[in-house]
Amino acid sequence: MAAACTVAELAVAVERLSGGRLSARVLGASALPLEAVAPLDSAGPCDLAFLANPRYRAQAPASRAGAIVLSPTERTALFPLEIRAQGALVECEAPYAWFAFAAQHLVGAGAPVPGRDPSAVVAAGARVDAGARIEALAVIGDGAVVEEGAWIGAGCSVGTNARVGAGTRLHAGVRVYEGCRIGRRGIVHAGAVIGADGFGFAPFAGGWVKIPQTGAVRIGDDVEIGANTTIDRGSAGDTVIEDGVKIDNQVQVAHNCHIGAGTAIAGCVGIAGSAFIGRNCQIGGAAMIHGHIRIADGTIVSAGTLVSRTLAEPGFYTGVFPLLRHREWERNAALIGHLADLRGRLRRLERAMAGISPANAPQEERQP
Amino acid sequence: MAAACTVAELAVAVERLSGGRLSARVLGASALPLEAVAPLDSAGPCDLAFLANPRYRAQAPASRAGAIVLSPTERTALFPLEIRAQGALVECEAPYAWFAFAAQHLVGAGAPVPGRDPSAVVAAGARVDAGARIEALAVIGDGAVVEEGAWIGAGCSVGTNARVGAGTRLHAGVRVYEGCRIGRRGIVHAGAVIGADGFGFAPFAGGWVKIPQTGAVRIGDDVEIGANTTIDRGSAGDTVIEDGVKIDNQVQVAHNCHIGAGTAIAGCVGIAGSAFIGRNCQIGGAAMIHGHIRIADGTIVSAGTLVSRTLAEPGFYTGVFPLLRHREWERNAALIGHLADLRGRLRRLERAMAGISPANAPQEERQP
Amino acid sequence: MAAACTVAELAVAVERLSGGRLSARVLGASALPLEAVAPLDSAGPCDLAFLANPRYRAQAPASRAGAIVLSPTERTALFPLEIRAQGALVECEAPYAWFAFAAQHLVGAGAPVPGRDPSAVVAAGARVDAGARIEALAVIGDGAVVEEGAWIGAGCSVGTNARVGAGTRLHAGVRVYEGCRIGRRGIVHAGAVIGADGFGFAPFAGGWVKIPQTGAVRIGDDVEIGANTTIDRGSAGDTVIEDGVKIDNQVQVAHNCHIGAGTAIAGCVGIAGSAFIGRNCQIGGAAMIHGHIRIADGTIVSAGTLVSRTLAEPGFYTGVFPLLRHREWERNAALIGHLADLRGRLRRLERAMAGISPANAPQEERQP
Repeated sequence: MAAACTVAELAVAVERLSGGRLSARVLGASALPLEAVAPLDSAGPCDLAFLANPRYRAQAPASRAGAIVLSPTERTALFPLEIRAQGALVECEAPYAWFAFAAQHLVGAGAPVPGRDPSAVVAAGARVDAGARIEALAVIGDGAVVEEGAWIGAGCSVGTNARVGAGTRLHAGVRVYEGCRIGRRGIVHAGAVIGADGFGFAPFAGGWVKIPQTGAVRIGDDVEIGANTTIDRGSAGDTVIEDGVKIDNQVQVAHNCHIGAGTAIAGCVGIAGSAFIGRNCQIGGAAMIHGHIRIADGTIVSAGTLVSRTLAEPGFYTGVFPLLRHREWERNAALIGHLADLRGRLRRLERAMAGISPANAPQEERQP
Repeated sequence: MAAACTVAELAVAVERLSGGRLSARVLGASALPLEAVAPLDSAGPCDLAFLANPRYRAQAPASRAGAIVLSPTERTALFPLEIRAQGALVECEAPYAWFAFAAQHLVGAGAPVPGRDPSAVVAAGARVDAGARIEALAVIGDGAVVEEGAWIGAGCSVGTNARVGAGTRLHAGVRVYEGCRIGRRGIVHAGAVIGADGFGFAPFAGGWVKIPQTGAVRIGDDVEIGANTTIDRGSAGDTVIEDGVKIDNQVQVAHNCHIGAGTAIAGCVGIAGSAFIGRNCQIGGAAMIHGHIRIADGTIVSAGTLVSRTLAEPGFYTGVFPLLRHREWERNAALIGHLADLRGRLRRLERAMAGISPANAPQEERQP
Repeated sequence: MAAACTVAELAVAVERLSGGRLSARVLGASALPLEAVAPLDSAGPCDLAFLANPRYRAQAPASRAGAIVLSPTERTALFPLEIRAQGALVECEAPYAWFAFAAQHLVGAGAPVPGRDPSAVVAAGARVDAGARIEALAVIGDGAVVEEGAWIGAGCSVGTNARVGAGTRLHAGVRVYEGCRIGRRGIVHAGAVIGADGFGFAPFAGGWVKIPQTGAVRIGDDVEIGANTTIDRGSAGDTVIEDGVKIDNQVQVAHNCHIGAGTAIAGCVGIAGSAFIGRNCQIGGAAMIHGHIRIADGTIVSAGTLVSRTLAEPGFYTGVFPLLRHREWERNAALIGHLADLRGRLRRLERAMAGISPANAPQEERQP
């Protein structure tokens, strides 16, 4: 399905794919044919490469890529004469986004070939659009809806009354529980589980009484969900993932969470029940979010950080123990349980010093 | 399968489900018919809602729920006249447990419709009870036992000589390895893997030699296991999950762990090999438990805490880096590797001060 | 498939399995027949047990095991007379490795029975070796290659043009995406996902543009991958797992990572994109590795540690908040955000002290 084209044609394609919002200046060999994408250091004459992370700047001058897309600033610094012997330059304000659209054009995904593998088990009461694709050994439950252009991978199960929106692809082995709904143009990777029961139990008589989880999961349009990620159904009321959310692998979203549009969540993150995460947030890998808290729109949380309270103000938050040589860690970490003692000793010294030398009296109100 | 009933009938049903241990006082419209459960803020006239978390207290007076279950204390504070214009009040010492049983009655799960989907692959030597349900494309291995009322979901595999106890439900795509046993009335969510090899290798000649994992997994009665959770088989001897344990999604239980009855483990927890966790513990989300340690009965571990040593005394343990604005984190975290130096400087100052002003001599024996 | 044998025969088998590199001295009842392996405290007369972890030393003298393998040092300390009433002793410099090979011999895995279950769905264009085993309801895509002695478990899917090397076993429900390659003699546990899209999006106009992930996953020989682990395909260029790497359950390896030969990665680890991990590293459970960094050969990272920068020097690194009683944590953790203030106050005191008593002037250059 690859769509080889010249650098100049690619610039036209990107402008179209981006809705006219992304234009570029092609410098040099604009008639060069491109077929694929590759990193700067391994690209060949038929590949498009990009420079966005300054870490890789040194690789650009020597790259054999047919074309390199980069910002005007980098272009000026690296190729001040607008000349690159090995091929073309594509100068663009948003080189990474330009590369993304260009790669989409070159890879040329498009709609699946419709049809139903004879080994799939589709309930009589399921409504599968004629333009959908159902792969081998998938199971579609009674009352489930699979819309036009949806693609259900091998061995998936779509539960009773669940819905998979138009153009959404479930890779192999995805499990969608009863009544859960996924919007349009989504991608769900292998092994993801949508709609398992939330973890709800009432303590009683030394044991636990299960709270039936009567809500579902409601996922918007243009959402991507990573492999083996789990999103639990609501206890009463739904777990909601808004449009354009991107979730990486091995993420756990508990019951009744709400994740705002455009938020990106990296791998191994855990989000406890009823957390409300705003729009356009970025949650770093393995961060953990407590339940029943709110995170403001546009908040950024560092990888590995535990968020234990509401973040009412957007900002960049971190809470990670710094990496040390183990012997340094042993020397220092044991003191963390004595910080309050150390502060107390510091206060006593300050008071003693103030007695001897009043000019050095501490300003108590500024102290922690 | 829903079982609509009046508030008064529901109180009778809960008393029965709880084995007579949970009674309630119904105030007001006891003949009102209830059909479902809902949160306080979205419940309607046919819904039961509950108030257990004080965070949601303010929602109770305005709730349109047909009935609200709450504690005598909350009832007295919020509805001192025992009157609620919108519907009934259910006063109960354990409102959350009452709600749980009531929801079970209203949702009305019950036993599955028995039968075997023709697409399932059941070995000739498997023993599947006539009262069990085997869904599409499940695989039941030779010598495996599926007891009465067990429910094997779509695409599950139950290995050779494995056993699924009476009334236990495996949701879609659960994998039970050879020889592993799950007790009665359990629930295992999609994608869980029971009995994969433990991570056991002996270092040898610069590489690793695999230790065959010859034990299995033995799971008690009334255990719930979350989606994509993994419980490894023992290396020699079994991994044991006792009765009534509740495990959330994406939890990893390594080989030869022992988890005591009634313990609850939240999502994303990892438990290393041969850890012994007592009864009625609560392990917070993403906590990590080292191998070969013991945790006393009734211990509570905070979310995100790494437990690196035996906890012989029950209690509430925490070890989490506090959340900071990133710029505050940068200012302060770097000092953690210098705490021992800071303490040294403090000691020198204390000694100098003692030379000048002996009354301020530090009490060395009390210092960390 | 178990292969019972005497202690003496087992010593010969281990020497052969280890390529002649592992010999042992059998003391005592060398003609005793062994059938299985078991821990010291539960082994019986037909079991082999081992002593490698000093934690279990006290169990050795009373063990009823038919044979115990242990180091010369432990043998001398525990059985100075080279006599053990209950059975044999096996003295060996590498007792754990000896035990591993011995257990492999006793368990006797070997090659699978070849054949293809009639319920499997194998594309016409797939090349499945006659010596491979394909279990029930597996799906093998067009152009996929399954080599001799490979074993594809129930419900697996092997994507278009993917390759499973000779002697490699995929347990139930493994998902291998299009074009990914697994080497020889590997083991992949249930629910693992090889080759899902990396998490790559370019920010654009308030949303995210997907970067097509055009690379694949390339896994070497003798690699073991745990249950529900995920290894993403490269964005451009492959994600590479070298020979002899051992990966536990629930690990996430992001796109374009490179993991060097012989490295072992414990459960719940997350590795962000383009991280380069050297050879023979050991990464503890739930450690998290940032993207675009390098870790030197032979590095050891503690469980729960976040590695946020390149580790150019091998060593033992840790970054974990120490476990505290919760009330101690509350007293002390709050001060972490004030460490810079505490240091500032210490400096002021040092200067004041230097004014009073110049002999105590701080050595500024040694301070953090």
